Amino acid sequence: MQIMNNSSTLSQSLQYYAERNNQRLAEWLAAQPFADQPLIKAMKHGTLLGGKRARPFLTYATGEMLGASSEELDTPAAAVECIHAYSLIHDDLPAMDDDNLRRGQPTCHIAFDEATAILAGDSLQTLAFEILASGPLSEHGEKYRVKMIAELAQASGSAGMCMGQALDLEAEGKQVSLEQLENIHKHKTGALIRCAIRLGALAVGDKGVTVLPQLNQYADAIGLAFQVQDDILDVTSDTETLGKPQGSDLELEKSTYPALLGLEGARVKAQQLYKEALQALDAIPYNTDQLEVFARYVIERNN
Amino acid sequence: MQIMNNSSTLSQSLQYYAERNNQRLAEWLAAQPFADQPLIKAMKHGTLLGGKRARPFLTYATGEMLGASSEELDTPAAAVECIHAYSLIHDDLPAMDDDNLRRGQPTCHIAFDEATAILAGDSLQTLAFEILASGPLSEHGEKYRVKMIAELAQASGSAGMCMGQALDLEAEGKQVSLEQLENIHKHKTGALIRCAIRLGALAVGDKGVTVLPQLNQYADAIGLAFQVQDDILDVTSDTETLGKPQGSDLELEKSTYPALLGLEGARVKAQQLYKEALQALDAIPYNTDQLEVFARYVIERNN
Repeated sequence: MQIMNNSSTLSQSLQYYAERNNQRLAEWLAAQPFADQPLIKAMKHGTLLGGKRARPFLTYATGEMLGASSEELDTPAAAVECIHAYSLIHDDLPAMDDDNLRRGQPTCHIAFDEATAILAGDSLQTLAFEILASGPLSEHGEKYRVKMIAELAQASGSAGMCMGQALDLEAEGKQVSLEQLENIHKHKTGALIRCAIRLGALAVGDKGVTVLPQLNQYADAIGLAFQVQDDILDVTSDTETLGKPQGSDLELEKSTYPALLGLEGARVKAQQLYKEALQALDAIPYNTDQLEVFARYVIERNN
Repeated sequence: MQIMNNSSTLSQSLQYYAERNNQRLAEWLAAQPFADQPLIKAMKHGTLLGGKRARPFLTYATGEMLGASSEELDTPAAAVECIHAYSLIHDDLPAMDDDNLRRGQPTCHIAFDEATAILAGDSLQTLAFEILASGPLSEHGEKYRVKMIAELAQASGSAGMCMGQALDLEAEGKQVSLEQLENIHKHKTGALIRCAIRLGALAVGDKGVTVLPQLNQYADAIGLAFQVQDDILDVTSDTETLGKPQGSDLELEKSTYPALLGLEGARVKAQQLYKEALQALDAIPYNTDQLEVFARYVIERNN
């Protein structure tokens, strides 16, 4: 994949990686037995139907910046996306956010049923670890396979994403401070975004390890910026563009950046985070064009 | 731990391993951040309050038979029990088996709420992989760490336990054949029991690998026997002894061995499986006393 440096080629690049990631996920799912069971169909529904594939993009872009081929990054990219897909299925459940629409499609428990959706989420989490434990890696990446599995677990579980969702549910209907809101998002979405980037680096081996501190800074800035922009879009966009119900944060009485900072304040916050992301990239001695363009996309996207 | 060869010492042995396993799980859970959050409390509720700890027992007994110390088996034993605990929390949810009582305690979604129970199950699955990726192993076992992670994933997900639960839910209220019933249980409970035994062997290293075929035969026999006896107890025992509602299979219109074979036929089936388990052990050139006594316990236990 050629390195891209403007937003029209970014969309091509996003599409290329999304299709590549879809293809790998489709292969892993096709290798599961009981193909005609609703459980397998629900897993496919939750993974293969659309989505921006922001996390796989970050894994590929980080690894390729460090000299890896796309092939050498397929395994971590697929594993991270499985975790993301499982979390969406469970977050949409009636007991959680109770959403009917996701990526312009009925959510998993609507298309199937609640039990199947719970099991599909469970099985996609398992598949993430199966992929990372048994998928191909480069010789340099092989050295870090166990570390990658441990990091994916830490980012996903009760120290990361799941705790973020728990904190988010707890905060519903309550007034939270900016600090608390950042803590929620740092866990709920930030941890897995950071992990996607770190796994892209670890898959390259020792060379990737040298830039992990700078990548952490970049990841934390764009992870939060992603959420700020999500909150802005929930206020300013419409359901058709979003592929999920507009105004759902308000309906669930969720604290958001526009609610705490005002819409203009939230936009300023997103710009600040963008600048922090670029500063982090400045300290990386490789061609960071793709990560830079992606940071701009994060705060300029409309869905 | 001394090797035991009668059932009164088996109960001591079960208790020793259960306490040891509890201790390790308590340590892993204590190491999680946000200790005061309901999510962490729900994870503890789902793992630390009772349970026979049959799977950890099998991991320890298999590994010690092959010369490992208890310390060298703590990691796989804890990981397998986390998967089991997560599956119980999710199976008990209203959308699944809708159970209020488990191990003599309110189920997780009753003690907390449904969202917390879903997230606690999710996080315990993650913790299983975190433990197996980062917990201590012997030098011989280290060589098989990645294989152990891959095997745990295969046993737990849509090719194993989760598919078994899906097949079981699908079969509710339907007449199923003996072959279909065995297929359900082979996945729902058999896959993780087999995995518990295999991880005990793999944690020992190359020496363990040499007896995997015989251990598979033993595991498949006791895995099925375990379910046959569960079905018998659901008919013949009482709620207080079971720690969960007696007669719940009947209520959910689940197919069971007593329903298909009659109570006496189910007992004969359990005996046959016990003999198959002993035959498998005969071909193992180590002291198989603990595994033998456990096989008898499986078909003689009353809860």
